[in-house]
Amino acid sequence: MADVQQWFQVRRIGTVRDASGGDMTRYTDPGSVRLIEIDPAWVPALEGIEGYSHLVVLCLHDRARKPGANPPLIHPEGRADMPAVGIFASRTPHRPNPIALSCPILLGRDGNRLVVSGLDAWDGTPVLDIKGYAPRSDSHPEATVPGWLVDLWAMHDRERGS
Amino acid sequence: MADVQQWFQVRRIGTVRDASGGDMTRYTDPGSVRLIEIDPAWVPALEGIEGYSHLVVLCLHDRARKPGANPPLIHPEGRADMPAVGIFASRTPHRPNPIALSCPILLGRDGNRLVVSGLDAWDGTPVLDIKGYAPRSDSHPEATVPGWLVDLWAMHDRERGS
Repeated sequence: MADVQQWFQVRRIGTVRDASGGDMTRYTDPGSVRLIEIDPAWVPALEGIEGYSHLVVLCLHDRARKPGANPPLIHPEGRADMPAVGIFASRTPHRPNPIALSCPILLGRDGNRLVVSGLDAWDGTPVLDIKGYAPRSDSHPEATVPGWLVDLWAMHDRERGS
Repeated sequence: MADVQQWFQVRRIGTVRDASGGDMTRYTDPGSVRLIEIDPAWVPALEGIEGYSHLVVLCLHDRARKPGANPPLIHPEGRADMPAVGIFASRTPHRPNPIALSCPILLGRDGNRLVVSGLDAWDGTPVLDIKGYAPRSDSHPEATVPGWLVDLWAMHDRERGS
């Protein structure tokens, strides 16, 4: 399989802007508002995006550490009371390809700027792709997750006071 | 902004296998079964993935054409009766970064092989990332889409005889 291509190039098509400055030490409030500035060359590709209530946004966590081969197990969010799992079973940004999936609400568009709610990314983060969120294939409310993740969500709710 | 990094490298962490051979001229049956073969170096990162009923799979459509800057509008799926929209408002694989999002059902795991249902990718397609599907952030059944996409889904249903 020596002829199989192993590395590929991807490009920035836009950038996340966090006008609030943001506290990069905390997890993002899921309702926080961000701007996505699309590079001018790709503005024509936005035509019709306003027809979607939600987006799929693929960002590259360019400040994450990339693990080496045969990575050790990790405790989600570094919490010792969470079981050790593999990188792919967690949402850690420190993964072989640090591509983050977010499905924010599209609040509005002003030219090359998309205003979104629910995008967990720092100011300056490169955006790789924008898609309209299509619930017929993207939404699986019946999906089940490991028990530790249910516990983690309950912890998040308590820590946010909700 | 000349110091802003515009290009990034991503790597294959696995490969889609379609044991059926597949008809590459057709859209995939949404229930079709595929294998994902994870490269041996990343098998430890799968630990605990069986706790999820569904996955998020990011593939790279390495056989897609990459559009140039200021791309023209396209008719979804090449259908003349669909309105012309921007690339980001469609799911065409021919996009600046041809990264496909799929949310298949995880049917089982055998070592480095994940058996999934609902992954629309050809045999040999590079896989960039695997995540567990987390409905709390990934599922938005209330999301709305453009009218043309509702029409397109109805066409798909008719063409599949469902």
